[in-house]
Amino acid sequence: MRIGETWYRTIWLADDGRSVDVIDQRALPFSFEIMRLATVEQAVHAISEMVVRGAPLIGATAAYGVCLALQKNPMHGSLDRALEVLAATRPTAVNLRWALEIMDEAVRFLPQDERVAAAYRRAARICDEDVEISKRIGEHGLAVLRGLAAAKGSGPLNILTHCNAGWLATVDWGTALAPIYMAHDEGLDVHVWVDETRPRNQGASLTAYELGAHGVPHSVVVDNAGGHLMQHGMVDVCIVGTDRTTAAGDVANKIGTYLKALAARDNGVPFYVALPQTTIDWHARDGVAEIPIEQRDAREVRFIRGLGPDGRVIEVELTPPSSPAANYAFDVTPARLVTGFITDRGVCDASLEGLLGLFPEWESDVREEEAE
Amino acid sequence: MRIGETWYRTIWLADDGRSVDVIDQRALPFSFEIMRLATVEQAVHAISEMVVRGAPLIGATAAYGVCLALQKNPMHGSLDRALEVLAATRPTAVNLRWALEIMDEAVRFLPQDERVAAAYRRAARICDEDVEISKRIGEHGLAVLRGLAAAKGSGPLNILTHCNAGWLATVDWGTALAPIYMAHDEGLDVHVWVDETRPRNQGASLTAYELGAHGVPHSVVVDNAGGHLMQHGMVDVCIVGTDRTTAAGDVANKIGTYLKALAARDNGVPFYVALPQTTIDWHARDGVAEIPIEQRDAREVRFIRGLGPDGRVIEVELTPPSSPAANYAFDVTPARLVTGFITDRGVCDASLEGLLGLFPEWESDVREEEAE
Repeated sequence: MRIGETWYRTIWLADDGRSVDVIDQRALPFSFEIMRLATVEQAVHAISEMVVRGAPLIGATAAYGVCLALQKNPMHGSLDRALEVLAATRPTAVNLRWALEIMDEAVRFLPQDERVAAAYRRAARICDEDVEISKRIGEHGLAVLRGLAAAKGSGPLNILTHCNAGWLATVDWGTALAPIYMAHDEGLDVHVWVDETRPRNQGASLTAYELGAHGVPHSVVVDNAGGHLMQHGMVDVCIVGTDRTTAAGDVANKIGTYLKALAARDNGVPFYVALPQTTIDWHARDGVAEIPIEQRDAREVRFIRGLGPDGRVIEVELTPPSSPAANYAFDVTPARLVTGFITDRGVCDASLEGLLGLFPEWESDVREEEAE
Repeated sequence: MRIGETWYRTIWLADDGRSVDVIDQRALPFSFEIMRLATVEQAVHAISEMVVRGAPLIGATAAYGVCLALQKNPMHGSLDRALEVLAATRPTAVNLRWALEIMDEAVRFLPQDERVAAAYRRAARICDEDVEISKRIGEHGLAVLRGLAAAKGSGPLNILTHCNAGWLATVDWGTALAPIYMAHDEGLDVHVWVDETRPRNQGASLTAYELGAHGVPHSVVVDNAGGHLMQHGMVDVCIVGTDRTTAAGDVANKIGTYLKALAARDNGVPFYVALPQTTIDWHARDGVAEIPIEQRDAREVRFIRGLGPDGRVIEVELTPPSSPAANYAFDVTPARLVTGFITDRGVCDASLEGLLGLFPEWESDVREEEAE
């Protein structure tokens, strides 16, 4: 993604050849800051404090976290500890776990002196593959948007999105936003309703920032607004990302996604979920019952960060000091509310049959598990 | 409602016998400030800038606005101008219009020198009646809560509410919160999930403040959270207020109410709307088609007010400066999603039949309109 004159990814190997640079997403949209991660502890901090976020980018950062640990100490104890602390950072996202398994496989059975180089090679491949996957999601989603725009005829195609599933959530391009960038680039008239996405406002800060930087017309709305917009025909399609998708098609995504899916169903608005195959949890079926939902610090609800009158980013308190708050980070949208999945292999129904149609290599694993 | 050692209403005649004092709700929950309204222009400002808000309190303030205008000039031209500017302050709330009609009727055909005294008497009666109505809503709602608590058996009764329909939205007691205060007072174990209610955060500021001051257990959540809570059995009932209710039972309330009603329906959670009869618009049927939805300044979305690090209330900016925002203040919850209305005359179905069962005096008006 281009910012000014420079093309950025969200994560890259630093010029020392060992550390990793990431964009500090907590500072956006008001300042563009790069943070260097030189140790596995710093990688853990970057994920848990949401310097980086978004399921695919969390996976890529965790992969480099393993590299940083091995760089310091390539022994198995060090590898095990790194896998453990990185896995504990965010309980809901599944491609965090996927990336850690990939890294484990890539280095565990190598001689000690080959592990570091192999780890860096594998982490770089995870990143390159993520970019490729996002591009393909963009192309398949673009076909969906073209179809909807043709059916609508005149006026802009109004797309509602929740949270940030853009290039800042991935290594580049994004998942839900990738088709929107491509549609805009080929001249399709699109307008995006950006849910602000409390408590951390990834929509109002990150998605609005991305879309603005790319020149895509958009309007920020509060999370409460989507139902009204849909009741009045002001939304043609919803597209969101996902942090974990069950084999049966349930979707765990940023808290509030479920409410928009309900409104879409009630108003006949198509509701798509864009996803790289790495977010599919082939072992899970019932999302509400099986997916652990991260609870974060109540402080994220009670305070909010913004640009103060003197031009510095500060936190202000929103609630009475004596009022407790609860902070669930995700909810589950049942498959029955999802029109379709936009994946790197094409578009399919939000169902086991739909997913296996595109990813037949999982058929035997899934059937075996069913037999158990 | 008691604050410290003093029992307050939200609006009262000042000690000069002419001006009106109100609580400046923009300063809550961080400071308790009283604002004096001495002119109709100040009353208009107080309503449009949301110094006061909540359908019943808007009506009471508008009534006193008419008094202030007549106090300055009791002629018909002055009365007409006051009715016009006050009606234009907020387009959605219907009891603003109701209060202005009442005031008009009370003074228009009186001799000029009797109008001022009659106006103040009528405005005071509007306030006293509102308190009485809220109390009755509380009693009827209390019966509903008792029934739900008995059916649940053990553990607290978890109630979700949106925006503020408490004593700060009325002259005293509140609508949706009145039953909760009474339940708590008689020892029922209740816990309230408080939607923060972006963009103006009336939940996180006003409802949390009220509940805390009264000692009612509660937790603030972001507006996105309710669906997740309901999916996991953490909500036993939703109760909200309304700014305008159609004769067919559709409900215009703070933006986002509709999304919670959808989630309640999807999870079998009862969804009640508490209302004084003055919010019923007997001329409207289809809420989505007929109720005008106020659009407010985009600045309310792009900025937020809170307590800064130095203990002063300040605004911080949330969105990229170049990103537009849209700010719809209300949405419409269709009658089909509402379990029942809690009114000052009892509980009824959200339907024309249900409402006419409690308010039979409207039958002939409604039937006449249908015949037309």
